[in-house]
Amino acid sequence: MAKTLTVDLGTREYPIFIGSDLLTRTDLYRDHILGGQVMIVTNETVGPLYLDAVKTALGDFQVREVILPDGEAYKTLEVWSRIFDALLSERFARDATIVALGGGVVGDMAGFAAACYQRGIAFIQVPTTLLAQVDSSVGGKTGINHPAGKNMIGAFHQPRAVIADTDTLETLPQRELSAGLAEVLKYGFIRDIAFLDWLESHMAELLGRDPAALAYAIGRSCEIKAQIVAEDEFEAGHRALLNLGHTFGHAIETCAGYGSWLHGEAVGAGMCLASDLSHRIGWLSESDVERTRHLIACAGLPTQPPAELAPEELLGLMAVDKKVIGGQLRLVLMQGLGEAVVTSDFDRDLLRATLACRRP
Amino acid sequence: MAKTLTVDLGTREYPIFIGSDLLTRTDLYRDHILGGQVMIVTNETVGPLYLDAVKTALGDFQVREVILPDGEAYKTLEVWSRIFDALLSERFARDATIVALGGGVVGDMAGFAAACYQRGIAFIQVPTTLLAQVDSSVGGKTGINHPAGKNMIGAFHQPRAVIADTDTLETLPQRELSAGLAEVLKYGFIRDIAFLDWLESHMAELLGRDPAALAYAIGRSCEIKAQIVAEDEFEAGHRALLNLGHTFGHAIETCAGYGSWLHGEAVGAGMCLASDLSHRIGWLSESDVERTRHLIACAGLPTQPPAELAPEELLGLMAVDKKVIGGQLRLVLMQGLGEAVVTSDFDRDLLRATLACRRP
Repeated sequence: MAKTLTVDLGTREYPIFIGSDLLTRTDLYRDHILGGQVMIVTNETVGPLYLDAVKTALGDFQVREVILPDGEAYKTLEVWSRIFDALLSERFARDATIVALGGGVVGDMAGFAAACYQRGIAFIQVPTTLLAQVDSSVGGKTGINHPAGKNMIGAFHQPRAVIADTDTLETLPQRELSAGLAEVLKYGFIRDIAFLDWLESHMAELLGRDPAALAYAIGRSCEIKAQIVAEDEFEAGHRALLNLGHTFGHAIETCAGYGSWLHGEAVGAGMCLASDLSHRIGWLSESDVERTRHLIACAGLPTQPPAELAPEELLGLMAVDKKVIGGQLRLVLMQGLGEAVVTSDFDRDLLRATLACRRP
Repeated sequence: MAKTLTVDLGTREYPIFIGSDLLTRTDLYRDHILGGQVMIVTNETVGPLYLDAVKTALGDFQVREVILPDGEAYKTLEVWSRIFDALLSERFARDATIVALGGGVVGDMAGFAAACYQRGIAFIQVPTTLLAQVDSSVGGKTGINHPAGKNMIGAFHQPRAVIADTDTLETLPQRELSAGLAEVLKYGFIRDIAFLDWLESHMAELLGRDPAALAYAIGRSCEIKAQIVAEDEFEAGHRALLNLGHTFGHAIETCAGYGSWLHGEAVGAGMCLASDLSHRIGWLSESDVERTRHLIACAGLPTQPPAELAPEELLGLMAVDKKVIGGQLRLVLMQGLGEAVVTSDFDRDLLRATLACRRP
């Protein structure tokens, strides 16, 4: 059975279905497909595993597919444009629907193509990684990378439905499972200390892919994210809390070169840096920082940037991040575990100290 | 003095300033610029004429420019991406503002870049062609072309202000002035027979660039368009009326190759085809069709497609137009002059006859 959450965005409200054996459930798709044409966007890794199942479920529609190369390195303008080539070569109309079958990269590119094709068509997310299930499939952020920065080109475009089938996590590499757990932990750090306690005591089950534990963690993560997004759809205010670890993380990813670090790994290390800076400001205790680092490490994630990355280089990249407003760098920090805040009220020297610090 | 119209879109309401000597008026820009960074997007033709004047007006801001090649043929993904290169090489932040200085192509590309840079930043339109002043600067449609079709990739993104300086029309080539008049005439054909009468009796002044006549025509055109857009921002319903002549026109443009026909020229011929089909259906009299063709011809515009374009080729291209819904081709036709309607209720054979007909 699917658990159903609803993201409440007025006229753009949509359901998130979470559970086993959902990929093939025609009924979950049907209500959210407008016309008769469906373009499935997937990649070379996920396609061979799940494309046939989804096509079977969508047998009543005119279904076509476009298969992209796999990986963050391909989240480019050039690869993105292939989706338009496919839509136009099939003469897909304005009432066509895009189904994004894959991880965050596929979801971001397919969603952004849906936002722009004929100035906006419908799309359904079918996330097949833990990261995409708890993060990129909720909130309507879509986009692609530019050599000068991640997600610099994009749009807000809400899916009509999200189908998160936990069975697809069985084929997920362990490293990607850990990367997804970074985002799961993030929701606890932002605003739910009880969820953080639960994650601490269930980390072994999660890493062992216990279906019940995963379903609970995905559901609670989506609930928290959906709540925050519904409060602030266009990121005017505290939706920025969801960027905990991300400004640090994006700088690490860019510095290390897209693709060498997974997004979740960079966010994991980024959250450790955020806790370190929060401690230097006087908000977190040393034991809070240690607990943060311990949780991140237990999830199989790095707790700091690569030794060779110079603090000045990271600082330079953080300055171009989207979270900069009026030349002022804003960061998400923690006033306590489970109590994140957005702030630009910190000493630059403390930030430099955090970026320079390499703990044992 | 500037005449000011207001496009009423709730929280996204914006002013259109129309008149002489507006380009250099700092006060018209200032209220609509968010942060301190301004990127002027212009092209190789308009830049040398007006860039310095706009930069002087914006002297208090951090102003940079990106100069694109001129012409519809350059309204591509590749050229569009140069705007992001410029924004990122200058590390422009989310509160930066794009100023689009040029015709419709510049406005469409700059506006679409503003829609997508960091998922949406502010932009101001400074249209320097008649076409852009009466059409592309009002309504929030932005986008680029794909080899398989015009404006297939884009977004709805409203400007914060439009500054339409009629002085810039003094440097406009005659052929482009005529192309702009096609859109002006369109507003009369859609819903204002009195405006059509006025245009008929003032065509000589308009072609002679009489400033008062131009200002009146621009103002009335923007009023009609703003009214229709305000009634239907996302083109769910009768905003489609604005496409009078466009489905035919896009097919002609695509067939002839982007850039060989101006958009307005194709729309002019397209409106003649729309009147011809309306006549075959029994809605317009023969004299209405002749009056339509006479008005279009007097404005210096073509009244039919090139002789060598096969009807079947045009029909094929019309089938991929955005106005197709559920496989059904919808067209804007006229039940009378000044009374356009959107309809799919016409005989395909009558459409074929219209596409095959070449009047003397």
